[in-house]
Amino acid sequence: MSQSLLENLIEQLQCLPGVGPKTAQRMAFHLLQRKRQAGKELSVVLNEAMDNIGQCSECRNYTELELCGICQNAKRAIDGTLCIVESASDLAAVEQSAQFSGRYFVLHGCLSPIDGVGPSEIGLFQLEQMLENGHVSEVILALNPSVEGEATSHYIADICKSHNISITRIAHGIPVGGELEMVDSSTITHALMGRKQF
Amino acid sequence: MSQSLLENLIEQLQCLPGVGPKTAQRMAFHLLQRKRQAGKELSVVLNEAMDNIGQCSECRNYTELELCGICQNAKRAIDGTLCIVESASDLAAVEQSAQFSGRYFVLHGCLSPIDGVGPSEIGLFQLEQMLENGHVSEVILALNPSVEGEATSHYIADICKSHNISITRIAHGIPVGGELEMVDSSTITHALMGRKQF
Repeated sequence: MSQSLLENLIEQLQCLPGVGPKTAQRMAFHLLQRKRQAGKELSVVLNEAMDNIGQCSECRNYTELELCGICQNAKRAIDGTLCIVESASDLAAVEQSAQFSGRYFVLHGCLSPIDGVGPSEIGLFQLEQMLENGHVSEVILALNPSVEGEATSHYIADICKSHNISITRIAHGIPVGGELEMVDSSTITHALMGRKQF
Repeated sequence: MSQSLLENLIEQLQCLPGVGPKTAQRMAFHLLQRKRQAGKELSVVLNEAMDNIGQCSECRNYTELELCGICQNAKRAIDGTLCIVESASDLAAVEQSAQFSGRYFVLHGCLSPIDGVGPSEIGLFQLEQMLENGHVSEVILALNPSVEGEATSHYIADICKSHNISITRIAHGIPVGGELEMVDSSTITHALMGRKQF
């Protein structure tokens, strides 16, 4: 017997992250029973999004436009700061804090020669051109403190130094509300090294 | 500023059960970054499924056909048993045990006069017609032991008695692998009442 449409739907839903056969089945029945209209709307938006969302030509964030909303905003260019993040979700997290009013640059990864990810794959040549234009006064690194993140940070720092642009890095330490005894020793090391005058 | 396509996608993904803003965002970025093709395929299947999947004219299970695969199978009709379940996911669970070789009937709910759910909403008149045809020798109730499930079970039992069809009910008790001390007292009550000669 060939696969039924329902079986096909349950299988395709498993392309979503964290969705296995049981969850996919639950989703399929939920849509069929109560949310047919919403399911159809999701189908339309999903198709449009997969076709039309590309990367912003300036910051490489996901957008269906040539320039994303943040890069279009002149006020954010005046600020002169450029925050470099590894992924679009990291950008969303920084943006949600509402503490940053400059522009972003999304790497979509980190330098990792073993996996064949070099400077061009993560847009570092594009970043260098941007810095040459002279509109950026400070680069803020918001990369993860992993081995690849460190390597990428050092690479970007070298570019900044050669263009005389100041470079900073967000603080790594104990999260607010985090309990000291529950925090891993690598974070505590960062917290100790980053201590400040009280 | 109007909503971007990405924001729209993240919003629409939240029609899936158990998916909030954070999960929806993660799903959207995952599809954009790694699974564009799968996302497009999901969109097509989703649209087709929402349009074409209806209920089987015999057992009311979800299918895009007039008669579902189980009802089309002549071997399963010979068995003469009819298992009554509350939902399509309950049917899938019974079917997965591979212990049942008869047919099903899906109520898509339970009698609940307060919510306006009467016998016709859960297909009990259709069930009665089916029993009148005389092909069913035994009705197996696989409903949940909730108040509504009990009321529905009694209603169906009355129909069966008036047609002289034997009616049974799946056993409620301690789940296999379940620890006695962790089981709720209502289940233990069922287990004690349903005890058998050893």
